[in-house]
Parts: sequence; C-alpha cells; structure tokens
Amino acid sequence: MNIEKVNSMDFGEFVDVFGNVIERCPLIAAAVWSQRPFSDLEDLEKHFFAFIDALPQSGQEGILRCHPDLAGREQQRGTLSAESQREQSGAGLTSLGADERQQLAKLNAQYRARFGFPFVLAARLSDRAAVPGELERRLHSQPAQELRTALGEVKKIGHLRLADLLDADSSRL
Amino acid sequence: MNIEKVNSMDFGEFVDVFGNVIERCPLIAAAVWSQRPFSDLEDLEKHFFAFIDALPQSGQEGILRCHPDLAGREQQRGTLSAESQREQSGAGLTSLGADERQQLAKLNAQYRARFGFPFVLAARLSDRAAVPGELERRLHSQPAQELRTALGEVKKIGHLRLADLLDADSSRL
Repeated sequence: MNIEKVNSMDFGEFVDVFGNVIERCPLIAAAVWSQRPFSDLEDLEKHFFAFIDALPQSGQEGILRCHPDLAGREQQRGTLSAESQREQSGAGLTSLGADERQQLAKLNAQYRARFGFPFVLAARLSDRAAVPGELERRLHSQPAQELRTALGEVKKIGHLRLADLLDADSSRL
Repeated sequence: MNIEKVNSMDFGEFVDVFGNVIERCPLIAAAVWSQRPFSDLEDLEKHFFAFIDALPQSGQEGILRCHPDLAGREQQRGTLSAESQREQSGAGLTSLGADERQQLAKLNAQYRARFGFPFVLAARLSDRAAVPGELERRLHSQPAQELRTALGEVKKIGHLRLADLLDADSSRL
C-alpha cells in the first residue's frame, strides 16, 4: 500500500486498516485521519505519536491499559488481537512451558500492582528467553520513568505495524 | 452494582465493565480508572465527560468516527457492539423496510461527506420515525456547532450506559 492509497481512504476504511496500530485504540487512528493528507509513512507515524504525546497522563496510562499481558489470560483464552497474537507467537510466548508461564504471570501481576498498567514490550524485538529478565529490570524503575519507557514500547510496536501495512522497511526504529 | 464495587475494581475489570460506555473507545474508560475513587455515578460520569472535553478537536472527531451508522453496514453484518445492537433495536432501527433503510443510507452518506464523521444520535431517546427528519435537520448545521451537538449525543449515550451498569435512574439527562 502506498501513501496515495492511504490518502484516498474515507475514515471508515482508514480505521479498518489502521485502527489497531495502537493496540485496541481505534480512537487514535480515527483522530489521525483528521490530519490527512500524509506525505509518507514517517509523516503518518508522526501524527500517531504526536497524539499519544499530547494526551494527559491518564490517557497515556489508558493506552497502556488497553494492552494485553504477555503470555497472559487473553492469549490463553484466544482473545488477543490478530496483531498481538502474531507478535507474541513470533517471540515464542505462545509456546511456554507451565513453569515459564507461571513465572511470567507472577511478574506481570507484580508489575501491574506497582505501576497500574500492564508490562508492554515490543515482542517482535525480543524473545521468550529475554522477557522475564527485562520485566524484572523494569519492575525496579521509577513510575514516571517507566511510563516513558512503556510508551516508547507502544511506539515501537506501532512503528512495526505501520511499516507492515505500508510494506515499508520496518528495520528503522 | 454500587460505587464501592466500582472503586474496588482493578483496571482490567474496570475496562471489561466500562470499556464501551463511550462506543469502541476503551481507552477512555482505561484513562478514567486513574481518577478513582469515585464518589458516585455522577462523579464517575464527570470524569468520562471531562476526558472527552479535554481532547483536541481531532480526538473528539475520532470518538465520533468510532460510532457505527444507524441502520448501517455494521448492523446488517451483525458486527455492532452489544450496546449499539440493543439501542438500535429498541428504536426500531433493525426492522426497517428496504425503502426506509435506503433513505437512511443516503442521508448517512451525505452527513459523513459533509462533516467527516458519522451521524450519532442517542437512539434510545428517539425512534425510527424521527431519525430521518433529525438527520436532515442536522445536515444543515454549521460544522463547529454539529461537532458540539454530536458530542452531546455521545454523552447522552454514555450517561444511559453508565446508569444501566450502576442500576441507577437513567431518566436524568
């Protein structure tokens, strides 16, 4: 898909295609449509990120709370979004043993209790072996710093999803 | 459900229960959770509405774009949210004849083309006989006024959904 195609979309098509660039936040894609036309992928991405950055802290926390746990309840129930399912599966997080899953569930719960939002990580840039250590490391962050780190992960996920949709080089981060 | 129960919810439960108070915008419920504890229904509602009012215009338009057309494509495909399905059905909008549906489809398309968001109406406070006239009337509004009117309808819908969830008197508007 090229940028001319994107610029020709009505808001219904646009939200159908880009509604999950930010996980379970079609509101953001729907808002970004107001900023068309876009000059290229980078410009489109810039508007997604600017919307996130302009939200009050509660809204930024809200974005994080729309994300599923890694290897969590939604994955086991089969209710992940298609994108999350692919990303978690690619990182090996859908084939954990019972012990690994339990360890991760415990760390996820500690993280949620400490920060009031779930642990968000761009799974495509990580793997099942690295996730628990990264989660333990971030558990010790200060809340304001951790909010910034988590939103950075949301943007990495969004960048990769946008690049997929536009068939662009997704290696730039 | 009483307000103590609401205040005891973790963010996962809260988003499960209140995620569609604003149609297809769980981000807003997820953000409102940051403001707990709530003193009562009115206080809870106040935080939903304050979040909407504080969004930039693109975000407010984004909320509207997450709503389905009345008697539109999503209703015919059976992909409405449970709440929208009930509300449209209660207003008689799921049992239109072919002529009525076609008339409404034409007006909906004109409205979307003029304003860049779908026609939003609190269907529970209206009925199939009144909808086309109201749509034609609002088609002639000025865009800034119409954005305000449409957000007012979003709030009426949200008020009724919240009142249902808290088993409260939903007649206050």
